[in-house]
Amino acid sequence: MADPALFEFLHTEMVAELWAQDPDPGPGVSAGSCHQHAGARPAQVQSLLVLEGMGFRVGQALGERLPRETLTFREELDILKFLCKDLWVAVFHKQMDSLRTNHQGTYVLQDNSFPLLVRMASGLQYLEEAPKFLAFTCGLLRGTLSTLGVKSLVTASVAALPACKFQVVIQKL
Amino acid sequence: MADPALFEFLHTEMVAELWAQDPDPGPGVSAGSCHQHAGARPAQVQSLLVLEGMGFRVGQALGERLPRETLTFREELDILKFLCKDLWVAVFHKQMDSLRTNHQGTYVLQDNSFPLLVRMASGLQYLEEAPKFLAFTCGLLRGTLSTLGVKSLVTASVAALPACKFQVVIQKL
Repeated sequence: MADPALFEFLHTEMVAELWAQDPDPGPGVSAGSCHQHAGARPAQVQSLLVLEGMGFRVGQALGERLPRETLTFREELDILKFLCKDLWVAVFHKQMDSLRTNHQGTYVLQDNSFPLLVRMASGLQYLEEAPKFLAFTCGLLRGTLSTLGVKSLVTASVAALPACKFQVVIQKL
Repeated sequence: MADPALFEFLHTEMVAELWAQDPDPGPGVSAGSCHQHAGARPAQVQSLLVLEGMGFRVGQALGERLPRETLTFREELDILKFLCKDLWVAVFHKQMDSLRTNHQGTYVLQDNSFPLLVRMASGLQYLEEAPKFLAFTCGLLRGTLSTLGVKSLVTASVAALPACKFQVVIQKL
């Protein structure tokens, strides 16, 4: 039985290492979308893109390991439910708390206690640090969707730590 | 239940990312100790040190999560047995294949099919790539030992992929 904290520890180290390579890691990252990067310095944007890319490839690989029977999804919503349940359990040992959609290709997945934010959730002063802890998971969702044949844009936002929302916008081909 | 491949995928991405940042990642890393770095370029040595440091901190953190009852080790050999069994299962979902010692503070831990080398184990031509896949785990062993109160030097060597040996030399205080 794998230690469930192993992924969290490794993710923490990965973020710390990639962020440390920023030559001027001052404040300035907004706690908004990890794709819009409002207020982020160029080196920080690069770090977020690297983390997102790593998440994408891990998501792709995880997606390929899915049991075949789960790959016969009837519709888009089934795929999103799969992310909220199976993918989240495989990575975070819990299910997503809610899933909403406008029925036009946009989905909002909410985790009320996102594991990668829990350790830093002791105060509002850390809100601006949140994006670097979300980029990998945005990529993870996008990568898993990609393996399932769905092209998407995934962004994340935080209003009150440690809750966060992932917005998935399906890109119609 | 966490997907046991998650750690492997993440480790692969981490190695690829940290290695890619080497401006001149040509050949030249020997497949010997990941601490001696014979023949490695300075940027590659730096990458190995970064990976080893990440492993060290993850090992420290994992060590702190151990059940209290396992912390009452009677002697040094018990601690090494713990690494071979409990730590290896927590991270790699298998036990180490053998443990040998000279009874003078040096231990050789052998894994006949080390999971982080299995994917690249298809030919001898990849032997020189092995050190970058071992540095994190050397750190992991050293970090866990550190939390258990044992200062050590850990190196790894590969003779035939995907088998590898980790040599632990206890530093007497």
